[in-house]
Amino acid sequence: MDTMQNENQVRRWDMYEISLEGPQTGNPFKDVQLRARFELENSSVEVKGFYDGRGVYKIRFMPDREGKWSYQTLSNVGNLDGLNGGFICTPPEKSNHGPIHVHKQHHFSYADGTPFFVMGTTAYAWTYRPEEIRERTLDSFSRYGFNKIRMLFFPKHYGDGQYIDVSYDPPVFPFRGEKNNFDFQYFNVQYFQNFEKRVAELRDRGIEADVILFHFYDFEHWGIDAGMSAEEDLFYLDYLIARLAAYRNVWWSLANEYDLLVEGNRQLRVVLDRKDWDAIGRYIKANDPYSHPRSVHNVPFGVIYPDAPWLTHVSYQHPNTYSLLMELKRSFDKPVINDEYQYEGNVPQNWGNASPELELTRHWMAAMAGGYATHGEAYRIDDNSKDIFWSYGGDMHGQSPRRLKFMKQILESCPYQDMEPDLQKSEGRDRFCLRKGAELYLYFQTPACKDKGNLFLGLPEGDGGQFDIEVYDAWNCWLHTRLSSQAGVIGLDVPPWAVIKAVHTKN
Amino acid sequence: MDTMQNENQVRRWDMYEISLEGPQTGNPFKDVQLRARFELENSSVEVKGFYDGRGVYKIRFMPDREGKWSYQTLSNVGNLDGLNGGFICTPPEKSNHGPIHVHKQHHFSYADGTPFFVMGTTAYAWTYRPEEIRERTLDSFSRYGFNKIRMLFFPKHYGDGQYIDVSYDPPVFPFRGEKNNFDFQYFNVQYFQNFEKRVAELRDRGIEADVILFHFYDFEHWGIDAGMSAEEDLFYLDYLIARLAAYRNVWWSLANEYDLLVEGNRQLRVVLDRKDWDAIGRYIKANDPYSHPRSVHNVPFGVIYPDAPWLTHVSYQHPNTYSLLMELKRSFDKPVINDEYQYEGNVPQNWGNASPELELTRHWMAAMAGGYATHGEAYRIDDNSKDIFWSYGGDMHGQSPRRLKFMKQILESCPYQDMEPDLQKSEGRDRFCLRKGAELYLYFQTPACKDKGNLFLGLPEGDGGQFDIEVYDAWNCWLHTRLSSQAGVIGLDVPPWAVIKAVHTKN
Repeated sequence: MDTMQNENQVRRWDMYEISLEGPQTGNPFKDVQLRARFELENSSVEVKGFYDGRGVYKIRFMPDREGKWSYQTLSNVGNLDGLNGGFICTPPEKSNHGPIHVHKQHHFSYADGTPFFVMGTTAYAWTYRPEEIRERTLDSFSRYGFNKIRMLFFPKHYGDGQYIDVSYDPPVFPFRGEKNNFDFQYFNVQYFQNFEKRVAELRDRGIEADVILFHFYDFEHWGIDAGMSAEEDLFYLDYLIARLAAYRNVWWSLANEYDLLVEGNRQLRVVLDRKDWDAIGRYIKANDPYSHPRSVHNVPFGVIYPDAPWLTHVSYQHPNTYSLLMELKRSFDKPVINDEYQYEGNVPQNWGNASPELELTRHWMAAMAGGYATHGEAYRIDDNSKDIFWSYGGDMHGQSPRRLKFMKQILESCPYQDMEPDLQKSEGRDRFCLRKGAELYLYFQTPACKDKGNLFLGLPEGDGGQFDIEVYDAWNCWLHTRLSSQAGVIGLDVPPWAVIKAVHTKN
Repeated sequence: MDTMQNENQVRRWDMYEISLEGPQTGNPFKDVQLRARFELENSSVEVKGFYDGRGVYKIRFMPDREGKWSYQTLSNVGNLDGLNGGFICTPPEKSNHGPIHVHKQHHFSYADGTPFFVMGTTAYAWTYRPEEIRERTLDSFSRYGFNKIRMLFFPKHYGDGQYIDVSYDPPVFPFRGEKNNFDFQYFNVQYFQNFEKRVAELRDRGIEADVILFHFYDFEHWGIDAGMSAEEDLFYLDYLIARLAAYRNVWWSLANEYDLLVEGNRQLRVVLDRKDWDAIGRYIKANDPYSHPRSVHNVPFGVIYPDAPWLTHVSYQHPNTYSLLMELKRSFDKPVINDEYQYEGNVPQNWGNASPELELTRHWMAAMAGGYATHGEAYRIDDNSKDIFWSYGGDMHGQSPRRLKFMKQILESCPYQDMEPDLQKSEGRDRFCLRKGAELYLYFQTPACKDKGNLFLGLPEGDGGQFDIEVYDAWNCWLHTRLSSQAGVIGLDVPPWAVIKAVHTKN
């Protein structure tokens, strides 16, 4: 309700919500069917309603066109059936660009055409920590310009039994019952309501919620997820879609590390058929009225999930953000996001002890491959601290976030969606080039780059002309030099971590 | 004649040579046409003869089948025409595996099927230095196991007018006349004879001569090459093929840095149409009876020569030995050799001041991309030294050659031609993996590799089994550890520069 202007006016891409009274007996989640058909001129959209507890049923709808919408309900319960109503959809607020879809084959844009440069970070279980921590988490996201958060729907347990042992119980669980004895056919609406508020907070900050639907981080601790049957999986998805899909900033990530299974002895094992991801992906595609982005996410030594019609983009986990990213972009012909290339941090595990230099290098390499990536940090600040950002949010302590923000600013100043890697202008290890035709060249160089300031600007076909060049210091985050140069082999004064942006001006 | 056993017996893939007396007047190179048709059973090969000075005409032939060959000459000169003869072709010596051809689409093998792992080096103008230097050059090649030498046919001048200024005149020039006034239609046979002796010396050491037919390193110094007309180019090629093609170890490299032109002011410029390379390539393909390997070679900021039917493999020059190499392999679907990725050395120019560490890394990366590369070194030992190996040979002073030899030994112990890069097992910058199916995994890691000893062995499809593992120290050139391990995530003790070879033994 928070985004409605008044009962009869909703802005485009905001949420219209209907509340209805209905039966409380039996299992309303299963027993009551409720839908509504929304119509505007000759188009119509059908959405499902859901039981929100205490006899309240809700129907949520995100209008994508301005004008006078009408609706009618359909239900197997008499007093919920055949209800009529309507609202006026007005122009969006200036900051609201709509939901995100794949654009130009390998990229993402908002519905109004504004390009979306993915700069992800990770806070798997931030949603059910106390408000004071959540506020700091949200501030951290905004401060560094992170615009897509990987977050789990189900609660998360993680412990190595030694160094890290963090498993806050959420205040409530998503299902009725108790640990290791949940009723997967009866939801606890409070858990869902809390999660939705977090999604709305992100939406209001212009941040996408990459909602991970299943994961294996339960370790037989609560008995969620691994205990659910295939029917219960879809029952849960059906309910989650009815509740969440009308939030314009939702993405569906089917699973994190979908191919990992924990056995009784805590041994990790790769099991590709843990769940029928294809059935789940098809179900979401068929039931999400708004076609939010859909992906599924492997472990680095597993198999990257093969292409499928329901997959809108590749979300993979791997330290290789360059050659593998380009290969995936080519073979899937879809956008590619490396959603975990290892986190900056100081935990003993390899997944969480990358240096800020490595973090920056890998993230820049993903961009130089023409793709996207997701940061994360795993700093344990003192021995008693259980709160590590990657799981529970809070304050960020890493040295990469501000440098990633600077990186994003540079890339947003470029026509990134029209740029492709130029391997002939890349050294392949310490210098990388991305360009838009002969118009704009962008180089990223690590301190190990041998030829440093020596560049060949212009195309070998003899294209000459003049270039306006900006040299940025990617580590210290400032503009280092600005100059003009003729095409050809040029020598530049560059900092150790250099980004060089050369814009063709005239012949 | 040095490889003949006696007048009537020649070993397979050795050279049979006929010497005939003929006219000395006029321009015998132009005026006299001489060919011979060699026949064995129902196959025949036609080769051209050539004038070798002092009234001597020669015809050279490399038999590729054992048996009783016969021949007949054809000429426009009466006493050279219609001559008959023959010889017995006997089995080759054990060390003679024949000429090299493309094998398994992306690799090279000798005619008898022995795989050829290219380990190139560069000595552009070693052929016309004094014998004492040449002996040391040959010993350097052999000591480090280099098996393909990039070498110019025409003499080479190089000077930056300051730090490096080396331009030995050859004792004789390839054409009659004098500097900047050569007669490109009258050859100086002594120049050719000398070059052939060098090719034969390489052949006898099992080394391939990658003969560069044209280059731009004349700088208006002698007026060769750039002064030749298109007809003179083919006239020269015709003569060179008649003389050299019967040496089994010859490769044709149409040009080095084919797209560079030097203008009057010594300014380098990229000029793609310096010569009609396509016409030259087609001519060689049509006239070389043995189909020796053919390539042409760009500058790094030029264009890699596009695919053509006469091109047997890609020879490119670029610091990018990995992602670009894989891209070229995919797009050309031919073997790829990075023939100059910058030389180890200490000259001021970037092309010749790579560290041994960079040299080793780039060369290993080429192998890990499933391709090949060519080393070079440019150490100037003292201020008075004009002799830099990359041009004139002599002794090698670099630290990479012995490590490249060790690298070659490891790769020759693998089924290299059946191995492909595995990007999911490569980190993309500091760890690289090449494998043959699930049988053999080879990793190369630089000291910057983050996860060092952590590997996932086995395929993600659940392939388990046992692995015999050898860990090599790629810097100190020894076997570091040998162990057996089960498939899965394993932790190894590895040196900073590590090569890990894991062979699947049993399930």
